[in-house]
Amino acid sequence: MNTQRILLASRPAGLPTAAQFQFDSQELPAPAAGQVLLKTRYVSVDPYMRGRMSAAKSYVAPYEVGQPIAGGVVAEVVESQNPALPVGQVVVGNLPWQQYILSDGQGLNPVPADQAPLSYFLGLLGMPGLTAYFGLLDICQPKPGETVVVSGAAGAVGMIVGQLAKIQGARVIGTAGSDEKVAYLKQLGFDEAINYKTADLPAALAAAAPQGVDCYFDNVGGAITDAVYDLLNKHARITLCGQISTYNATETPVGPRPEGKLLKTSTRLQGFIVNDYLSRWPEGVKQLTEWYVQGKLQGEETITEGFDQIPAAFLGLFKGENTGKAIVKVA
Amino acid sequence: MNTQRILLASRPAGLPTAAQFQFDSQELPAPAAGQVLLKTRYVSVDPYMRGRMSAAKSYVAPYEVGQPIAGGVVAEVVESQNPALPVGQVVVGNLPWQQYILSDGQGLNPVPADQAPLSYFLGLLGMPGLTAYFGLLDICQPKPGETVVVSGAAGAVGMIVGQLAKIQGARVIGTAGSDEKVAYLKQLGFDEAINYKTADLPAALAAAAPQGVDCYFDNVGGAITDAVYDLLNKHARITLCGQISTYNATETPVGPRPEGKLLKTSTRLQGFIVNDYLSRWPEGVKQLTEWYVQGKLQGEETITEGFDQIPAAFLGLFKGENTGKAIVKVA
Repeated sequence: MNTQRILLASRPAGLPTAAQFQFDSQELPAPAAGQVLLKTRYVSVDPYMRGRMSAAKSYVAPYEVGQPIAGGVVAEVVESQNPALPVGQVVVGNLPWQQYILSDGQGLNPVPADQAPLSYFLGLLGMPGLTAYFGLLDICQPKPGETVVVSGAAGAVGMIVGQLAKIQGARVIGTAGSDEKVAYLKQLGFDEAINYKTADLPAALAAAAPQGVDCYFDNVGGAITDAVYDLLNKHARITLCGQISTYNATETPVGPRPEGKLLKTSTRLQGFIVNDYLSRWPEGVKQLTEWYVQGKLQGEETITEGFDQIPAAFLGLFKGENTGKAIVKVA
Repeated sequence: MNTQRILLASRPAGLPTAAQFQFDSQELPAPAAGQVLLKTRYVSVDPYMRGRMSAAKSYVAPYEVGQPIAGGVVAEVVESQNPALPVGQVVVGNLPWQQYILSDGQGLNPVPADQAPLSYFLGLLGMPGLTAYFGLLDICQPKPGETVVVSGAAGAVGMIVGQLAKIQGARVIGTAGSDEKVAYLKQLGFDEAINYKTADLPAALAAAAPQGVDCYFDNVGGAITDAVYDLLNKHARITLCGQISTYNATETPVGPRPEGKLLKTSTRLQGFIVNDYLSRWPEGVKQLTEWYVQGKLQGEETITEGFDQIPAAFLGLFKGENTGKAIVKVA
């Protein structure tokens, strides 16, 4: 069996480009005892992958130059020498960007394919959903009537955070980078949505949060965060989940020091990575699936088609091209 | 009874000066039923008072221009119409800068004068001690063998934080602003102490913390904090207790954005004010007193004499003149 692969060709300086990706093909042997051959169906592209392209130590190990890039993948078993994973079984796992993958089954989770579209197990019912679930409910803990601000609100995680905050009875304000995304957020039930590219951000946020901000779920960082810091209420909670505005910076980003503002409001800020919650994964999936089945949570995806379009879909994240989860449909 | 008072003459712009303080005298009537006349013995001067001199909303209400400045005071009952507070009783409370004070007894706490020098109830066994106690043990929660960094380590709070961290079995690094203070910290049991005014701070901190930093108790902010952020271990904890390096800033301080560093280490940062722990005050005083009586905790004070020297002692805080708690002995 011959498979296409996508390797990390070189580490990016600043914004990644197509030059970082190298396609090649590899011959895979037939599965040995205990192994399965997987056919890739859907590939997840996520902002955190930018961090793994750098050599610097971060919360996940760097990708190796010359090796396949890896991430969330939904795949189907097409040949099996493993009784636990029969042909036809759909699984989700952290897998290489390949059309076909040989696996010993370790780390593969069967997908309940009757409950939702397969791609949702990379979004609403996958890592982004769990990121929103634990990051908001465990760290921010919004109470009914409190004000929650979400940056990157139309992204894969942000759109779920906002819906979860509404389920908790909070007032929800989202920031996003286009009028289309703002309209989408309002349709999704956000109380206020702000286009950070066109609004006077500090004034717009202050107007949208007349009672101040109790919870801030940050996917973006930078100027949006600066504006939120000025509106924090006493005992505010901040989930620091992503900093996409700075991921491609080639110099250390500089800004107003936040410590004085966090001090005088007794704010708690927590750097958050969903991998710290692996032991509670089943609890989160169960609750998210329940809310989804009840119609309380919606998924939203921007789907690109074709294995060869994976790099373009990834690069599109940094241009704000996706609303909801960015997914590549491979087969 | 005539008393001297110290009023806030005007709000400072930047560093406060003697011009902010106005002495006057006031005639006090004899105590009515339920009242006591207090004679001030010791006055506490603290960095947080700088915040109260500004009009801006902070975690404590601003002082009023033309009214007495107030803070921690140890005083003795010299006339009493209140059976609960007999003549000779020594009390501690938040009281105005006056030589004599008329009080209805509200908010006054009797001092166990046999257990420690009276002034210690403004330091080791008072607000600074409790700030260290709850800020370190409740928020940072250092474990044996972990590395704790304390900025402003020779100050009223920092010197107690370091001792408490040693009691917990941690490795303790302090920063301070003179070689004398550094020597004092080493004598007090700190594993490492750094003069931030003369050292190459990032290099010195990295050398002092070869295992990285697990807990940071920050009284100072600014460049020291920037250097600590670069050394944080996974799941580090930061108690943001003070920011004395910025209290007199007339423009918004700017620096490298910390969010990326806090995110990739899953650090928790908590803005902290000891007033949030009022309900647990007795627990803290009991434990601190026990450790003091057992010889596990030492107090340290810089005592200035004379009511008229209170402004100078306060201004000295911002020149780093005090080692340990800055106290004014009035009578």
